[in-house]
This record gives sequence, structure tokens and C-alpha cells, in this order.
Amino acid sequence: MPTCTVTLEEALGRVTAEDVLAPDDVPNFYRSTVDGYAVVAADTQGASESIPTFLTVVEEVAMGRPARETVCSGSCAYVPTGGMLPQGADAMVMVEYTENFHGDEVAVYQSVAQGAGVVVPGEEVRKGAVLIPKGTALNPAHVGALAAAGIWEITVYRPWRVAILSTGDELVHPAQPAGPAQVRDVNTWALAALTRACGLQIVLRRTLPDREELLEQALTQAKEQADLVLTSGGSSQGKADYTCRLMDRVCDRGVMTHGLSVKPGKPTILAFDGASQTLMIGLPGHPVAALMIYQALGVWLWKRLTGQREQKPRLAEMALNIPGAPGKTTFVWVKLQTDENGRQTAIPVLGKSGLMGTLVDADGYLVLDRNKEGLRKGEPVEIYRLGI
Amino acid sequence: MPTCTVTLEEALGRVTAEDVLAPDDVPNFYRSTVDGYAVVAADTQGASESIPTFLTVVEEVAMGRPARETVCSGSCAYVPTGGMLPQGADAMVMVEYTENFHGDEVAVYQSVAQGAGVVVPGEEVRKGAVLIPKGTALNPAHVGALAAAGIWEITVYRPWRVAILSTGDELVHPAQPAGPAQVRDVNTWALAALTRACGLQIVLRRTLPDREELLEQALTQAKEQADLVLTSGGSSQGKADYTCRLMDRVCDRGVMTHGLSVKPGKPTILAFDGASQTLMIGLPGHPVAALMIYQALGVWLWKRLTGQREQKPRLAEMALNIPGAPGKTTFVWVKLQTDENGRQTAIPVLGKSGLMGTLVDADGYLVLDRNKEGLRKGEPVEIYRLGI
Repeated sequence: MPTCTVTLEEALGRVTAEDVLAPDDVPNFYRSTVDGYAVVAADTQGASESIPTFLTVVEEVAMGRPARETVCSGSCAYVPTGGMLPQGADAMVMVEYTENFHGDEVAVYQSVAQGAGVVVPGEEVRKGAVLIPKGTALNPAHVGALAAAGIWEITVYRPWRVAILSTGDELVHPAQPAGPAQVRDVNTWALAALTRACGLQIVLRRTLPDREELLEQALTQAKEQADLVLTSGGSSQGKADYTCRLMDRVCDRGVMTHGLSVKPGKPTILAFDGASQTLMIGLPGHPVAALMIYQALGVWLWKRLTGQREQKPRLAEMALNIPGAPGKTTFVWVKLQTDENGRQTAIPVLGKSGLMGTLVDADGYLVLDRNKEGLRKGEPVEIYRLGI
Repeated sequence: MPTCTVTLEEALGRVTAEDVLAPDDVPNFYRSTVDGYAVVAADTQGASESIPTFLTVVEEVAMGRPARETVCSGSCAYVPTGGMLPQGADAMVMVEYTENFHGDEVAVYQSVAQGAGVVVPGEEVRKGAVLIPKGTALNPAHVGALAAAGIWEITVYRPWRVAILSTGDELVHPAQPAGPAQVRDVNTWALAALTRACGLQIVLRRTLPDREELLEQALTQAKEQADLVLTSGGSSQGKADYTCRLMDRVCDRGVMTHGLSVKPGKPTILAFDGASQTLMIGLPGHPVAALMIYQALGVWLWKRLTGQREQKPRLAEMALNIPGAPGKTTFVWVKLQTDENGRQTAIPVLGKSGLMGTLVDADGYLVLDRNKEGLRKGEPVEIYRLGI
């Protein structure tokens, strides 16, 4: 898997291609977490509201500046939140528990333990520790942790370049009127949106009529430009056959699979070209099936090859009985709803022929094992979402 | 809330600013879902493997082309998957259940019901129906449904323009070495990443030393350019005070709130400028608190004003007892883990002073009510994720 370097400015959603180690201790100094006085903790033993300890203020430490003086028994220094403790000090007393006399003497009304109000060097990040493991898709907290450690550039996997080829004499662009027998090209735009949602890059996007030589040209061009080529077309047998034949011709390793025991998605084709390291997926023509197979194979493989951990599914209970398809792994779209007992339930989103409109309300999908006859009401299920 | 128009190419993650209605029926013709013959269903009554019905083929319909002939009792037409049924036909027989003789006669070995293998006009999307309601953050399935309905441009809320101002004499850029008492600017980059993750736009990003006149200039500039201004700075009392004073001076409606009964996030400031319709949030200096308050106030308000539905939380059980902070709403970061009984449990991610490094492993956060003394092991909790 090829890698590239990005700065924290573009790091969101990228996947780390190596363990990111902390180059230094963070913080690299004794840092106060409160506004107050840096003291020798032992000096405050027994101090209380009625019996304060009196200390001499030797310094007022400024933010971002090293402390200059040393604190020893009987003395202290003012340090703001985030400021550096002077040498010798081992605890902070919050300003609320002190009273300042004539600027250079302070009464301390609280006893503090060693380390109170102090972050010690390396407490946030220890030098050499794995800050972010390889295979992490970076979120805002990760970006913050990298910034804290002083890591500005990181090595991430270069997102796959994806080509999307949709074929069909019946297809018209969504912006164009559809005449009788014509339908709008759905797959190009739904697959493009899922590609973007996964942080992958679209390099080629074509809608083609059903002419073999045009698809062959497009596959040949896509092979050179893309890491992943998605085709989708009518699910009629004739079309699936020639897509398969062309992929077999264009890819040096040929077609690996034609037909999967999944529902929906049976007519799926997988082919690989070794020279260009390009994977081709011939998706079913039905938009819902095409999205599902892209998710189950394309997105899954991207996550797998970049070492990303699996999605943590949502747990729910089936709201009603549903049948399985014996011998076929079945993908079922569901809507999540909390029932009157506070339990999360999964309601299947059913629709004839997997029409796109039915997916609008879905919260995710579940995978029904090929060996299960179905799912019973109340049975626990795991719900995954579209995307990474 | 101002709106703008985008095409399906840039629609992912945008929020619809009005109900999207279907302009036409989809499909707008009787569409086959199989490869086979369009028939009059009544003709196939009683047909079986042993007693076929014989029909005359009057047409072979091409994909994307209207059917020309009419099918009546005794006749049929070949239609590919996705093709248009001729007038008169009311069902499809799959090609697998037929046998073709001399091209113009076909034996049908199966009885089909009216409507079998056919999508009727308006079945996918009904003209005038609400396809996508107002306030929907568009996902790939929504994009597909819009394409299917022939909707290329949609009206969405213009993402908030966000200004991020981080202040502190101690701050250095993550790419720069940190001397003694200096720390890297974490908030700018973590807040920017969360801004991007929510689909909002960054228009200004500044790291400033602790000088009042510089912050005042920056606030004034930010007010003109941004819908939302995020400042963050040290949590020391002196700084919070002058940020509050400056926001009050720069905003015509002044400061609304200084100090929230939340943990973390107590020193939060809220101010509003009516003339420019700009909201300012003075975030705490601690990065974890700053992220949390941006999520709880800024992101929440954006979702609220754009009418987006609340995140569906993950449900889990507390893995151990945790104390609350009486009188304060407490945000607790947790890691999710499935226990040996298959139950999802929430393990608090604890870290002294909310260090950024501790968030790296968190899967989300829970909100502990101000009136609760704490949470007991096994108690059900709702887990939210950072972002929209």
C-alpha cells in the first residue's frame, strides 16, 4: 500500500501508515494546572484556615517563560495555569486558598500533597511511546494529540484512486429529463458519495452506453489511473457476461470470481490486474445492491489493507422476525428505534427490488449468516453503518 | 440561517434547507426487474413444466427504448432487466422458465401473477412525495435517491464560517521546537479538525500572544468574516477576564454567559453580535475541555438551527462506578468494550487534567446529569461521538 505525507491541516480521516511515536516528553517541564503558588509541599503540612503558613514570594513566573529562581523551604513563586514551576517546588496551592501581603509575603491556608496541581514531564506523552498506532483513522482528538506531541507531518496511506464506470443505454444524467424507458444514472453519484465518505479519491467518472468497445476503452484507461475500478450496469445476463469477458481480457490476472452467494449482489465480478495493481469490481446494476457490495468488498478491503480496526457495530434487538436466504449471506437494511423499555430495536427496511428510495430512512445494515434460517424477534443483532 | 445551492457532486454531508419533493414518478414506465418475457398474466394460468403455454413473440424491447408493440392474449415480448414493458403486458416470466422456438414462439413453463417482476410507475418515488425531509444531513443513500428522482441541485444550509483564535504566550506551532515552559498549540488544530468533521468552513485561524489589543483586533476581524468565533486561551483567571471584557466590547449584544455549571468547561464565555449575527464562544484553555464545549455548544447549536435530528446514541452499561460532580453537568469520555456476555460496556477514560493523550482511545462521551451523584456499574448509559 503506497503512502504519503500530510500535515495536521489535512490529517482528518487519513489512516496512519506507521506507529506514531512521541519524539519528546510532553510536557517537557513541571506544569501548573492551577493559578496559584508553587511551594515545597512539606511547608504546608498542618496549614489550615485558622493556622496559615507564611511564605516569601521569590518570583512571579510568566506564561511561556522559564522560571528563573529556585523555591526552597519558606519560599514560593506565583505560577499561572499552564506555567512552569520553579526548581525546588513540588506542588501548587490554588490562589483561592492564599492571601497576599505586601506583594512578597503570602499566607497559605491549605495543606497540599506532593504533586498536587502539577503535571510532571512526560505525564501527557512519554518520549518514545506509541502515541497513535498504525492503521488509525485520525479523528479530531488524534489531531490534537499529535499537535500536543509536536508532530506536524505524518505518514498516511495514500487514499485509493477510484474509477466509477456506469453503463447502460437507459441511463440519463440526473439533471436531464428521462424519456419513456429511460432512468437516471444513480450509481455514479451514490458510489461517488460513498467514495468521498470513505476518504478515497475519484479519478475517473464515466457514464457509458452499452457498447463493448467503449467499456473496454474505459476499463483500459481506468486500469492505468485507478487503484480500484467500479463498474455497474444493468443486471441483465448479456451485460454481466460481456463485462466479465472484458475484465478478463483487460486484467492480466483475469477474473477471479463471477457470482457471489450473497443477497443482494449475486452477479458481482472481481478481477485483478497485477501489472498496475488494480482491483476491478463489477457491481450489480441495482443501486442498493451496488452500494452494499462496494461497502462489503471495496470499503472492507481498503480498511483491511490499511490495518484499520473494524467498525464497532451498534447492538440492537430485532423488532420482528425476518427470513434468511439459505446458503446466501444476506445484507438487511434496518432503522433503529428505541422501544418503550429503552431497548434499541432494529426494524428491517423492506422494499421491492431494493429501490434506492427505501434506503433513505435506514440507519445501517446487518449481515445475516448464510447458515441461519432467519432472525427471530428479540434476537440480538449487530448494526453497521455505510462508510468506514 | 442562510442557504446555498449545491449539485449532487458536492451534496455529501450537506444539510437540506427545505423538504425535497419528487418532481415526477420514478419510474415513469412499467419496468422489468428480470430478463424474460412480458406477458398477460392470465395467459400463464396453469402453465407448468409439463404443460407449457405457447406465446408468440411480437417484439424484442431494447434497453432505454420505448416498447413499440402491444402485447395481448397469446402474445408476449422479450424485455431485459430494467427494460420497459409493452402496453397490455402485466407480468414478467423469467427467461429461465421459458424456451424459445424459431425466435418467434416461446414456451412458458411457469404461472405468474399480475405484477410479477414489474416495478410500476411511481413505485420507487411518487410524484410530489417528500423524498428527503428538511434538516437531513445527506449520506450516500440520500444522494442516490436524489439522483433517482432526477434532482441534481438542492438547497442546503450554507455551512457556518468559523474563526479559530488561540491565545497564549506559551504557545508554539506544532512544527516548532518547544523550549522550556512552552507548549504546542493544540486547540487550533483539534478545533479545526472538528470543524471540518462537521462540514463547517474555517475562514480564519490565528495563534496570538497574550496581548489584549491583538485579541481585540482579531475578534473584530473575526466578527466580520465568521458566523462562529471560537477563542481559547489559558484558563488562568486573568486571561479569562480580559477575553470576557473584550468580547463584551466587540459584540453589540455583549456577553450572555460567563461560566457554566459543567465539568469540564466551567470558564466558558458566550457572546453575541446582533449586527453581524456572529456567535462567540470563549472556550476553556484545556484542549479536552475546549473540544468538549465546542461539541456541546457550537456543534449542538449548528445541528439545532439546521433542524438536524439528534445523534442516535450507542447504548451501553457502565463498566464501573464513577462519581458525578454535584450541581454540574459532567462530560465523561469512555471506551466501549463488549464483555464476556456480549453486552456493550462503557469504560471511563480517566486522565489527570483532561490531557489530550487520554482521548486517543475514547469511542465517545456520556453526559452525567447535574442531579446525579454518579453512575453505578451496570447502569445503562447513552454514548455520543464527537462530530455531527
